[in-house]
Amino acid sequence: VRCYRRQTVGDNFDRLVEALRLALSRADAVITIGGLGPTEDDLTRTAIAHVMGVGMRRDDGLVEGLRATFAMRGLPWFDAIARQADVPEGARAIPNEFGTAPGLICPLDGSKVILALPGPRGEFLPMVDGAVREYFAQHAHGEVMASRTLRVCGMGESQVESLLKDVMGSTNPTVAPYAKLGEVHLRVTASAANRDLALEAIRPIAETIRSRLGWHVFGEDETTLEAACLRLLGDRGQTLSVAESVTGGGLGARLTSIPGASRVFAGGAIVYTPGAKEAMLGVPASVLEAHGPVSESVAADMAGAARARLKTDFALAITGNAGPTADVDGKPVGLVFLALAGPAGVAVEKHQFRGLREDIRMRASQAALTMLYRELVAPNRFD
Amino acid sequence: VRCYRRQTVGDNFDRLVEALRLALSRADAVITIGGLGPTEDDLTRTAIAHVMGVGMRRDDGLVEGLRATFAMRGLPWFDAIARQADVPEGARAIPNEFGTAPGLICPLDGSKVILALPGPRGEFLPMVDGAVREYFAQHAHGEVMASRTLRVCGMGESQVESLLKDVMGSTNPTVAPYAKLGEVHLRVTASAANRDLALEAIRPIAETIRSRLGWHVFGEDETTLEAACLRLLGDRGQTLSVAESVTGGGLGARLTSIPGASRVFAGGAIVYTPGAKEAMLGVPASVLEAHGPVSESVAADMAGAARARLKTDFALAITGNAGPTADVDGKPVGLVFLALAGPAGVAVEKHQFRGLREDIRMRASQAALTMLYRELVAPNRFD
Repeated sequence: VRCYRRQTVGDNFDRLVEALRLALSRADAVITIGGLGPTEDDLTRTAIAHVMGVGMRRDDGLVEGLRATFAMRGLPWFDAIARQADVPEGARAIPNEFGTAPGLICPLDGSKVILALPGPRGEFLPMVDGAVREYFAQHAHGEVMASRTLRVCGMGESQVESLLKDVMGSTNPTVAPYAKLGEVHLRVTASAANRDLALEAIRPIAETIRSRLGWHVFGEDETTLEAACLRLLGDRGQTLSVAESVTGGGLGARLTSIPGASRVFAGGAIVYTPGAKEAMLGVPASVLEAHGPVSESVAADMAGAARARLKTDFALAITGNAGPTADVDGKPVGLVFLALAGPAGVAVEKHQFRGLREDIRMRASQAALTMLYRELVAPNRFD
Repeated sequence: VRCYRRQTVGDNFDRLVEALRLALSRADAVITIGGLGPTEDDLTRTAIAHVMGVGMRRDDGLVEGLRATFAMRGLPWFDAIARQADVPEGARAIPNEFGTAPGLICPLDGSKVILALPGPRGEFLPMVDGAVREYFAQHAHGEVMASRTLRVCGMGESQVESLLKDVMGSTNPTVAPYAKLGEVHLRVTASAANRDLALEAIRPIAETIRSRLGWHVFGEDETTLEAACLRLLGDRGQTLSVAESVTGGGLGARLTSIPGASRVFAGGAIVYTPGAKEAMLGVPASVLEAHGPVSESVAADMAGAARARLKTDFALAITGNAGPTADVDGKPVGLVFLALAGPAGVAVEKHQFRGLREDIRMRASQAALTMLYRELVAPNRFD
């Protein structure tokens, strides 16, 4: 399904109606997100009924379901909650497994449709994968599109584009680059009579990209760099731990975002102060004083200690200054040292990142994962 | 400045032009984000020149600046990079301190304006706080709006609304609730002849909300729950550590997102496997076997050990199952135990969260911070 335009408006009836009408004038199907809750400013439901030119009916089955959910979860009942059981005449509810407000499939005259989904990500994503996908599968006609995203690490957007200049000009499939923090995503999209043909059209371009960019292509589609690292380590039966200063747990949080991470990732230490580096990882006070906490030596000691204490094959350590000001030793904002301890010893990298505090922290964990990934797939390459 | 509508379109010249024209037909100022980079699908600049009906000139000063930035950062130069120095005739560049593509201030006939900003958050946010804010301050006329957001924890959106039914109906100021993961935000907005008068109109409603919701209002505007906890602890000269299983470092990452956190937050342990709980925190194998890693006893032991090892006044521990399947002991998805160790002993909470894996993990760290916050501000309240 081609999605060409998105609009956002506030909780205002007139602008909601205007946005829906504009969207319907340009597309066959309109997906709305949000405004289906119980509060007075949840107006999507009534705006849709208005655009459909129909009234609203309260669905008794939905009310009962809501009452049961609230009773089961021990939550107090308010009359307003029942508003979530209001359905425009002619529309059909999509059950909400992860919340209270159901979604709505609202057919309009002339075969157009509004698919209304609740706002929380944890509620609308399952509906997209379920009822919405099903609806489009049943109503699809004409050409079908497919796309695959190749994910690239350790290389900037300009460099990627300069290596793929000819490929970027292609029209079917198209290749679109997206710069992310420490990653570039290349989305290859083809349209064809059916999905298999579209995927077949994507294959040769994807292979060209892979052969030009080499180890830098670490995964496809939803495969994050942390997932790629965990998979490689899991395949080898190897394990990982972390020691985090400047990222404060962010690297561990990324690694444990992957279900089943515990097969590979044991844990680690968050050592945000010099005292914590000593208490949790035994980094000697003399080293901390001689080099400062943001230093090559401390990064190496942190990685070595995490690897030894958690008895893992590899350990990643991060220490640095994310700002907003230079640290007590005068280490500048964005200066980060990474260390990777492994069976062959400890390697250290020095980086100078730019950007906001959150960007520097994200780039630091990204660079640490890139360091590990590269060690696992291309340990002797220096390009 | 009132912002009523937002549009999103892909890297397509015709749709960009259409979106700009539609936006200009409805508003005095249009802010665009993205599409100013060096690649071939960065089309915002040319779309704006087209809508303005002017040509493009390459700004030699900007080219020199770009060359200097690339040289300083040791990055390879590509001819395409210079495209970022193209400026529509009559427009003025906004320097980019955190990246390469400058922003653009593009005046149109009839006193309308397009303010074009680069896509990365770390680049456009500083411009919003700088040149954009300045532009609007110079060109403001008529009423001025001000808003303050009161942030609420430990209470759901329905409950908040039922306690504030009368307040929600107010028209100037308006009060709008936003449900977040484990938080509710109440945005109070007033318009008046000047900013001081608008803020004055907000004050009594904000006070009413605070008195109705009590300790649940933990902060205003950009004050996160982690920031509120760190501030309270800092004021008392107290310190904090963490022990994280299911969140894998996410709680530590939230605490260290706040500049200056090291005054209060020492660090902690990420103990994702039973072996790590033993190695890093000395949780006895007997306890892990008897109760399972997702248990009240293990949470309490984790918190106690983190507090002792890092010599902090408080320690928060989180253990649970974020899914997607029941764990080896059959503990259901969403079951989370929290423990808070402090000078007065260890308290434990049991939670059953719903939602996606990432939501459960976020709700778990949110509930842990709520537990700490409540202990700090209202230790003897049970509402």
